[in-house]
Amino acid sequence: MSKPIGRTVWAIAEGYIPPASTAPAPELVSHESVCMLNAGLQEAHVEIMVYFANRKPAGPYRFTVAPERTLHVKFNDFTDPEPVPKGTEYSSTIISDVPIVVQHTRLDSRQPALALLSTIAFSSD
Amino acid sequence: MSKPIGRTVWAIAEGYIPPASTAPAPELVSHESVCMLNAGLQEAHVEIMVYFANRKPAGPYRFTVAPERTLHVKFNDFTDPEPVPKGTEYSSTIISDVPIVVQHTRLDSRQPALALLSTIAFSSD
Amino acid sequence: MSKPIGRTVWAIAEGYIPPASTAPAPELVSHESVCMLNAGLQEAHVEIMVYFANRKPAGPYRFTVAPERTLHVKFNDFTDPEPVPKGTEYSSTIISDVPIVVQHTRLDSRQPALALLSTIAFSSD
Amino acid sequence: MSKPIGRTVWAIAEGYIPPASTAPAPELVSHESVCMLNAGLQEAHVEIMVYFANRKPAGPYRFTVAPERTLHVKFNDFTDPEPVPKGTEYSSTIISDVPIVVQHTRLDSRQPALALLSTIAFSSD
Repeated sequence: MSKPIGRTVWAIAEGYIPPASTAPAPELVSHESVCMLNAGLQEAHVEIMVYFANRKPAGPYRFTVAPERTLHVKFNDFTDPEPVPKGTEYSSTIISDVPIVVQHTRLDSRQPALALLSTIAFSSD
Repeated sequence: MSKPIGRTVWAIAEGYIPPASTAPAPELVSHESVCMLNAGLQEAHVEIMVYFANRKPAGPYRFTVAPERTLHVKFNDFTDPEPVPKGTEYSSTIISDVPIVVQHTRLDSRQPALALLSTIAFSSD
Repeated sequence: MSKPIGRTVWAIAEGYIPPASTAPAPELVSHESVCMLNAGLQEAHVEIMVYFANRKPAGPYRFTVAPERTLHVKFNDFTDPEPVPKGTEYSSTIISDVPIVVQHTRLDSRQPALALLSTIAFSSD
Repeated sequence: MSKPIGRTVWAIAEGYIPPASTAPAPELVSHESVCMLNAGLQEAHVEIMVYFANRKPAGPYRFTVAPERTLHVKFNDFTDPEPVPKGTEYSSTIISDVPIVVQHTRLDSRQPALALLSTIAFSSD
């Protein structure tokens, strides 16, 4: 179980934080998240870069995923070095120093019934 | 057709059982499931580990998938060695002794119209 | 452009035709489909097997995908050698004699707002 | 970060632009998009071919993705050499001269609550 599972280079081509929400509860606010599983025994140091259509990339956004832990982060919450704008098309790369597994999810509640999408990200080594 | 299809090591980075439901029927209660296909001729012995953000992993949860059969299990229904908490972010690994194929699905009916997500899980050998 | 793209062995672990629909139009009836792209110059002969939890597999269901054509088929419409039951968990394998690309989609309109899921299927050679 | 991530040959087997929408805002009109990330330092020249069930393929549709940029395009907006018909099943291939990452997304607002699907496309080299 402790053998590292995953890869070190990941990419998500789709990216868009819906600029509005109809949902009452905070957890139903429209958002995009990246879920990172570190099933190994070494701490994972992760750098996320965000790519746009018409400007240079933002980042790196740095995260640490403890051994045998998962970390779900929302692009909505990114602040350092800068926030990710809502209603804007983007992509992202996720580079780790040890193998991890990455999945991309969006919750869209612009209309009064939420919609979801998710996919395992593209990976290589 | 009888040649084993699939891999032995799988991972799902996303994991979240919505803590509420608006749906009337039991089959529309918010849930997450893992679907395992054993297209081979040997019984598959599967161990699922569940990883969290702030505590040690839970499991292994053990399942047997008969030859040429599928098994869809809901994380909502896991009890041994412990239940998977609702409204909590997690990830999972699915390790089998023979090749299988794994897909992850969530049904979210927190708002009065269900949402779905699904992806083939990450795999390696 | 004419070089064959894809693989010959595919699998979809998730499978479930929602047993009800609220949608008025025929194209919004709850369904599951498998989309097969044959981007090559040779006819693809495809055999789909459907696996269940508690009985032997059904099939093969046979399809031909013409060169440089796509074929989207609904599990709802399978009849030969037998229909696929609604409200029942299943999985499927898709075997072709030439490379194809396979994607799995479900439309669920059990509640009065449709939900969608889709994923590229698992592939090997 | 500047090392090219991705592959040069991609395919999306599912394809269908819902022929109607209930959404008020332009950005909620039913659509299908292909998101292309070029994380490398060289311009990517991309050719998309669209495959149908009963006629010869359309295309190539040509796009350029600048270095370290993303490009999200909607099949709805394709015009040259011809538009992609709505309410029609199709598939697509995406061929680039340098590595890119491709993801497929549909927004369906035929019913008064949008639905989403997304998946990383199939890739090879």
